[in-house]
Amino acid sequence: MNAEIIAVGSELLLGQIANTNAQYISEQLAEAGVDVYYHTSVGDNPVRLSQAVKVAQGRADLLIFTGGLGPTKDDLTKETIAKALGTGLSMDGEALESIKAYFQKTKRQMTPNNEKQALILEGSASLKNENGMAPGMFLKKDGISYMLLPGPPSEMRPMFSKYGIPAILGTLKRKEIIYSRVLRFFGIGEAQLETDLEELIDTQTNPTIAPLAGDGEVTLRLTAKHESKSVAAELLDGVEEKILNVVGDYFYGYDQDSLVEVGMKVLKGKGLTLSCAESLTGGLFQSEITTLPGASAVLKGGVVCYQDEIKKKVLSVREDTLKQHSAVSEQCALELAENVRTLFASDIGISFTGVAGPDDLDGKKAGTVWIGLAVKDRPAKAFLLNLAGGRNGNRKRTAKYGWHYLLKELT
Amino acid sequence: MNAEIIAVGSELLLGQIANTNAQYISEQLAEAGVDVYYHTSVGDNPVRLSQAVKVAQGRADLLIFTGGLGPTKDDLTKETIAKALGTGLSMDGEALESIKAYFQKTKRQMTPNNEKQALILEGSASLKNENGMAPGMFLKKDGISYMLLPGPPSEMRPMFSKYGIPAILGTLKRKEIIYSRVLRFFGIGEAQLETDLEELIDTQTNPTIAPLAGDGEVTLRLTAKHESKSVAAELLDGVEEKILNVVGDYFYGYDQDSLVEVGMKVLKGKGLTLSCAESLTGGLFQSEITTLPGASAVLKGGVVCYQDEIKKKVLSVREDTLKQHSAVSEQCALELAENVRTLFASDIGISFTGVAGPDDLDGKKAGTVWIGLAVKDRPAKAFLLNLAGGRNGNRKRTAKYGWHYLLKELT
Repeated sequence: MNAEIIAVGSELLLGQIANTNAQYISEQLAEAGVDVYYHTSVGDNPVRLSQAVKVAQGRADLLIFTGGLGPTKDDLTKETIAKALGTGLSMDGEALESIKAYFQKTKRQMTPNNEKQALILEGSASLKNENGMAPGMFLKKDGISYMLLPGPPSEMRPMFSKYGIPAILGTLKRKEIIYSRVLRFFGIGEAQLETDLEELIDTQTNPTIAPLAGDGEVTLRLTAKHESKSVAAELLDGVEEKILNVVGDYFYGYDQDSLVEVGMKVLKGKGLTLSCAESLTGGLFQSEITTLPGASAVLKGGVVCYQDEIKKKVLSVREDTLKQHSAVSEQCALELAENVRTLFASDIGISFTGVAGPDDLDGKKAGTVWIGLAVKDRPAKAFLLNLAGGRNGNRKRTAKYGWHYLLKELT
Repeated sequence: MNAEIIAVGSELLLGQIANTNAQYISEQLAEAGVDVYYHTSVGDNPVRLSQAVKVAQGRADLLIFTGGLGPTKDDLTKETIAKALGTGLSMDGEALESIKAYFQKTKRQMTPNNEKQALILEGSASLKNENGMAPGMFLKKDGISYMLLPGPPSEMRPMFSKYGIPAILGTLKRKEIIYSRVLRFFGIGEAQLETDLEELIDTQTNPTIAPLAGDGEVTLRLTAKHESKSVAAELLDGVEEKILNVVGDYFYGYDQDSLVEVGMKVLKGKGLTLSCAESLTGGLFQSEITTLPGASAVLKGGVVCYQDEIKKKVLSVREDTLKQHSAVSEQCALELAENVRTLFASDIGISFTGVAGPDDLDGKKAGTVWIGLAVKDRPAKAFLLNLAGGRNGNRKRTAKYGWHYLLKELT
């Protein structure tokens, strides 16, 4: 089976956005072992879209469309494909209900053109849209499979990985399946990790080991091919063990895990509560925590203390400390962590103070960061970072180091 | 003249990178007034590439290729196109010299396959590569123009804008140029906006009006074609005025503006300081502010008060209020906004309290949100939202509504 991904939307041809949908879908299909031979982008134009469909029918047996499922006049993907396939459109009751419910809930007026979003190709299976209104659809006709997905990545990505990929794999007869597992590391560079594991990476064939760096983290993708899921799992376990024997100190999680998720799990497990004093990170550390449901079980809250005046007034940092050592100092980080822990009556207080950049500040280089950590019944600690990224890279990296040191302290 | 952009490289089909070259080239062509009807991506495969060339020859009169001009075996774009056009390759002396000079300069050994990079299509004009080794080329044959560009954006972009665009415009007799302007709206849905502007959008021809939705915002791209920049600007101003007469209440900025940037500009301009009480948003609102350099001039700081206990203890919300109305109430939002303003001694206090979801909370539906706004010397106000997104969609939307109401209050 080979696929062609067809993105529909004039905004692509005007260069307003890049076709990141094609990249996401291609990545997922590669993992599923489905070859992608072509990407095509075409505008909101029925004539050129139907020409693109004809071309694709001649060279691919899975056509995946993104975009053009919305309520407005220029959204015409399914209408055009219906014509091309000589089929019609039928109302998807479930989708229509959820659209109506959406408007009732938001107390907004539902305009008639919104009903159009619930129409799907006759005979197609509807793919649920859990992050928007327009459902996706999957149809097999004359030996060719057609999948239609919404354009907004926030709707398309979860729909494709949750419903799209399984629907595609369901049509495959292939016995040998690809199983992969991602190991996540923080606090070690890609080059170092690769050097430590060089021989293993070079000699491994099934599973293969592929390092990838990004966002200050390094991941290893282990990919095993086998007919049996359990055998594949054993193969993956074996290599994982070998890897962790070498670089286990930096390992923190699997697949889509993030440091904040793993950290929150650990805190929940130990029944510990957390509060934060954020100067450098300006709310980022807590914002990442509160993206997770159930965050309130762990996070008591915190203070964004962007200015010295606030550090003194709200978090009782001593005048002396700021005078003698400045806000970007071990002493200030320690006081912030201890005092926020006291003010919020939490088990753990963590603080972030530093120079995000772009410019240096009171003789401290941009990228100089102190992280304070106060755990009840233990002496408070502070950790110094010297980061080289840009302003926001440094802030994100700092938040990750916060979890890195917190996890080292607790496990 | 209409163009097709053909990207060559298996890394695109594997989802390792997004096709940002197509976006860049499309943007430049749009500004030059050249229509782009299709993007195609194809792997490093001569058979499928030549098929893609045939398809493109049948539907476009300018074919722009990116990638596959390098020294390695899998770089085969020009060889394949030469075959497709029944022409040969000839050595470009100038390019060869600069490649040799490059190796002398870097004191590296020049391998024979590097000479291959200096080969260009017979009869084509060579486009100088000032950031790498492989030259681009431009050839007109049988009424179709062919442009070949290197794949690395750092080489392609300067080559295309400095040499590629002029070469293309040189083949055009037209003087007319395209000017566009994006208007940004928040607080109104795409369908509603299009319904309100239906007649205008349908009857407008120059400038054209194109709606696009994303991230809870709607944008309108106005595109005017004219020989004179000033006349085009007048055309854009005229339509903008008509649009804002209808939906001006929801308009907040132009082009790449964001609500937080516009809001911060307004606060800086008025010399007003801000503090925040974040329950629902959990630090997100402040985190978005502190991504901007110079945020400290406006943001005094704030409290993440995720729990009732903290709302009472740190932000002095009255026991009564929480008992009688719960934390998700107009009364609590007002107290939070007023009290954080007092605690941080800022001109403005803003608060966010609500049920992010996924689950309902104490009889309040997920998506119920109160935003409190306390501006000095004015009575505090609170605004109710009923959001229908997921947990994090609701939090992001809420932060944007915060700026929406703050801007309405101040302007």
